[in-house]
This record gives sequence, structure tokens and C-alpha cells, in this order.
Amino acid sequence: MATIEDVAKLAGLSRTTVSRVINDQPYVTDEKRQRIIQAMNDLGYVPNSSARRLRSQKTETIAVLLPRLTNPFFGNLIEAMEEKASEWGYQVIVCQTHDSKKKEMDYLQLLKTKQVDGVIMASLVNDWEDVKPFLECGPIVFCNEYMDESSISMIHMDHKQAAYEATIHLLEQGCTHISYVSGGPESHLSKKRKEGFTEALSEYGLSFQEDLAIDWAMDVSDGQKVFHMIKDELPHVDGVFTGSDEVAAGLIYEATSSSNWVIPDDLAVVGFDNQMISLLMVPSVTTIEQPVKQMADKTVEVLIQQLLHPGALAPNRYVYPHQLLVRNSTKRKKLSIQ
Amino acid sequence: MATIEDVAKLAGLSRTTVSRVINDQPYVTDEKRQRIIQAMNDLGYVPNSSARRLRSQKTETIAVLLPRLTNPFFGNLIEAMEEKASEWGYQVIVCQTHDSKKKEMDYLQLLKTKQVDGVIMASLVNDWEDVKPFLECGPIVFCNEYMDESSISMIHMDHKQAAYEATIHLLEQGCTHISYVSGGPESHLSKKRKEGFTEALSEYGLSFQEDLAIDWAMDVSDGQKVFHMIKDELPHVDGVFTGSDEVAAGLIYEATSSSNWVIPDDLAVVGFDNQMISLLMVPSVTTIEQPVKQMADKTVEVLIQQLLHPGALAPNRYVYPHQLLVRNSTKRKKLSIQ
Repeated sequence: MATIEDVAKLAGLSRTTVSRVINDQPYVTDEKRQRIIQAMNDLGYVPNSSARRLRSQKTETIAVLLPRLTNPFFGNLIEAMEEKASEWGYQVIVCQTHDSKKKEMDYLQLLKTKQVDGVIMASLVNDWEDVKPFLECGPIVFCNEYMDESSISMIHMDHKQAAYEATIHLLEQGCTHISYVSGGPESHLSKKRKEGFTEALSEYGLSFQEDLAIDWAMDVSDGQKVFHMIKDELPHVDGVFTGSDEVAAGLIYEATSSSNWVIPDDLAVVGFDNQMISLLMVPSVTTIEQPVKQMADKTVEVLIQQLLHPGALAPNRYVYPHQLLVRNSTKRKKLSIQ
Repeated sequence: MATIEDVAKLAGLSRTTVSRVINDQPYVTDEKRQRIIQAMNDLGYVPNSSARRLRSQKTETIAVLLPRLTNPFFGNLIEAMEEKASEWGYQVIVCQTHDSKKKEMDYLQLLKTKQVDGVIMASLVNDWEDVKPFLECGPIVFCNEYMDESSISMIHMDHKQAAYEATIHLLEQGCTHISYVSGGPESHLSKKRKEGFTEALSEYGLSFQEDLAIDWAMDVSDGQKVFHMIKDELPHVDGVFTGSDEVAAGLIYEATSSSNWVIPDDLAVVGFDNQMISLLMVPSVTTIEQPVKQMADKTVEVLIQQLLHPGALAPNRYVYPHQLLVRNSTKRKKLSIQ
């Protein structure tokens, strides 16, 4: 079993410096911290966490609440958060709420029962007023989901603007009957997207058409069903804003394999998140890239600062830029006549 | 805020029955249990977990340790485990080890510090002898990863047989130079796969060729790199066993988009896991389907039985059947001459 001395030796640094890193104390440069973490990993060194946790009355654990891990956006978000947290000696546990109010509340109890030190919420299904009391038990930071609320820190993208740009792009490609496809419970984020979509339409003299909207699509197999619904019931639809690369992929797969629809000429499709699948599909999927790593890093940093210096930081909002990536699922050869 | 009476009323059952379900007591039929869980979800009813936990000295929390969530196999495994655990009133927290010995040890401390009641390990990087002492703090069950060890329960597939069948299939398609592509640390599971691959080769009078093996490929972008390595350095390779749908997808994408290779005629490719991507790719990917849901359900059941009746159950091994799904990435029009 490796000892603290072994780590110090391999890193070429003093025992005191190693101890500082283990106990998250200041006065260690990032470079030295990295060297020590690397040495600990190489040696499989395990600090005596139980004793340390008992001493500090801290769990050094952060919980991240999110709707479902099978959505790769959240997988990537967790990946980045965990990497960052681990630099500070914190471990991350992941809690899937499946958009259930009860599960969200149950997992928030982890703060009350002192099983975790702080919570990151990547989604919210309960009313904020019901969640707010948990702030008395420890810090909560929002990432991805957001709202009009100034009592906590939030790290997110401008989803209204992103949906606006994607929709303008579909309109520029000549689409005149655009279906708005979404899924999951209505949240602040989803409302903002819908606002952006509607605003873009109105610039082209169009209005939101409820009869072209589908609100139950969340994954690849839903995307397949969306295609059949469009084919059978909404054949005049010529563009789709899906809000999800998975839904877009399912839709494109079904359109090209089960029928002989040409994407984008028969139907232009926009996804969301720039997941790997959006690049691998034939045709590749036009999508919105979210700055996942930057958002994850900032979220962890903000939460850990609150844990290390309670009350010292005022709540803040950090809005990160997105990017519309135009690929083959929307690049029409001939633009339709409006 | 909903009360226990509201739940009883909506479910049309007595307060006592609701209380039994909340406290995981026996004498409630599955049908009634489901009705009560449904009513609790509909009403957003939250049992007073803190008090209950304090009373029972249990956290009603299970930790699942796995290498990385960005691999959809693990996302789907967690999805199924959580659904099952939630039926029993347990919550699941997910811990990514990134194949780090230190992180695995850190997360196992959750048992020691009583932050969780039991642990499911879907991977193992430390020596079992180093993990074994944690059994004194609570039950551990293996799922997916396995080993020759009888002191704990294990739920898994026969990876040797699965790799054997996939390789025989490639050989039957006329492949004579098959590259063995893998990634991550060598584990019992990965050794078993390699054994199956080697056994299949030997039936065709071939032996394992180290110079055709690649051992650093784990995701889509690694798959892309694998293609270029084959193209530039191993052009005589005519078949690939990847052990991963993601690697297979990256390889196929790169072969067909960056070069004009024909899959499967120039290169037959086999994935593993039957992830959604394997169906969406053009061509679709031949793969091994794992019985994810059955394995997840059994694992949770075994662990919870151990939590409810400590020491009552002898450790057992449950081996679940797989299936080779032959798709277009290996269906060669003309078989090569051997």
C-alpha cells in the first residue's frame, strides 16, 4: 500500500505539500497540485478519507441531480464536472430524477442528512419555493436549467437565442411549415426555447402552430415515431426543430430507412447539443453546440468556493455562448418557394 | 404538500398499507405496492426520509461504481437498476471511477462512512483482495465485471462465449486477418473476451497476432484513429473485433467519410453491446446484445435481499445469455478466398 511519503517522493515534492493537496489547503500552485494528483493516481494512493471526513465533518461529496443519464448531454456534463471536482479532492455522485418530483425531493434529502456537502441541479421539476428551504442545509448551484431568481448561482446558455438562431436557419432554407418537437416537463429552459422559436417565426410573418407541435419526444425511438406522425398526419411539414440530437437522429433514420424521404429536401431537421451521434448520422445533423466543459468547470468552481468560504460569494449568473453548427440535415440544394 | 392520507385515498388503500410500502415491510402485494408508488409519484408525496433514516440507521441508498457514464452501456444499466431500486424505496447514486484505483477506493469509503448501505460494482480496477475488507462494512454485488471468486454474488454474461461467436462469424465471412481492438485496463472480463477470440481463431488454424492488436480504443474518436492506423500500418487487416459499438461506429464513420472504403467488403466490423448507435449507423453494425435489463434487475434484487436479510443468502453466480446480432457491417457480398 502506497504511503504519503511514496507520493511525495514520486512527485518530487515535500510531504507537507502533499498533505496540503490532500486536505485542500491553499498555497499550492496548480502545477504542483497536478503533479501530486498524478502521483497519487499512479501509485493508487488512498488518503484515509474516513478519518479525514470525521475530523472535518465534511463528506467531500457533491451530488449532481439530472433527469436521465441515457441523454449523452448529461453524461458529458458529469464527465467534465467530475474531472474538475476531483482536482479539488471532491467526489461526485450522480442522481437521476427521471423528472419525478418525489425523486428530486428524495435526493435533495442527501443535503439534509449530511450525505453530501453540496448539490448541483441540472434540472428542476419541483417549484423553486419547495426546493429553496434546502439551502439551509448546504449550497445548491444550477447548471443548464435556470430561472428568474437571484438567490443562487446559475451557469447556463441562452436557450432562447439558440432556438431563435436554429429556427431562423430553417426559415432561411425555405421551410414554411416547421414542427416544434420537444419532450419532458415544461421548464424555464424549455419555455425559453419555445420563445426563441416563436420569435423567429414572427420575423417571417408566421406564428406558432399548435397543430404542428409534438411535446412527447425525448429519445431515438420517439424520433422514429415523430417521423411516422409527420408522414401520416402532417405531410405539409417541411422542417423540424427537435431540441434533441437523439430525436433528430431517430427521425432521420426512420425517414431514410423505412421511407425514401430525402433529408433535407423533403424535411430539414435541426437537433440540439452537438452529441457524437449528430456527426455520425448520414446525413449529419445540424445542431447547437453547448459549451459543456466550460459550464461544468464553472459550476464546480462556484460550488466549491461556496463550500470552502460559506457566505463569502454573492450569487451570480454566468451565461455561456453557444454555436449553431450547420450540417447536411438542413443544407437544402433547392430552396422552396415561400 | 401531500400527506400519507392523500396517498392512501388516491390509491384506494389503507394508511397502514401505504406505511408498509414506505417502510419496505412485507405483506403487500406487488400490485398494491405499484398503485401506492404511482399515487406517491402523482401527488409528489415525500416521506420524511431523514426521520426514517435516522430511526433505521440506514441511508436507503445504493452506490453503483462504474468506469464512465459516457459509455451508453452503463447509462442503460443504471437506468434499469434505478427503476428496480426505486420500487423498493432505495435510491441509487452513481460513482464514476474512470478506471482509477484511487477513485474506486475513495468511492468504496462510502460504505465505511455509512453514506450508502450497499455497493454494486460494474467494474473492478483494484485487486479483489484490497476491496474485500469493505465487505465488513456492507454488502457488495458485482454486475457485468466478474471473476473466479465465490465470496460474493455476481451477475454477468459469458464474455468468452460472446467474443467466440462474434469472431467465428467474422471467420465465416472470410476474414483471415482480424484485428483485436480493446481499451481500458485489463480485467477478468477483458481477458475472457480475448480467450474467446483466440479460441475461435484456433478453430480456423489461426493464432492471436499481437501485431494486429490495438489496446487503447474506448470511444468514437478512438475508433476514428483505429481506422487510420489500419489504413496506414495494417492494410492487410480485413476484419475487426472492437468490443465496443462506439469504437465500431467511429471506425465505420471514418472509413466511409474520409476514405472510400467499403464496409464490410474491405473491412468487416463487429461492435459490442447493441447500443442505439449500432442500429443508426450506415451500414448498421453487427454486435452482441447484452441482457442489460435482466442483469440490472437481478443485481438490485440480490443486493436488496442482502440488505433486508443480512447473511441469509449464500453468494451466487447468475450468468445471463447474450445474442449475436448480424447486421450490414459484416454481411459480405462476396466471401474472400481463404
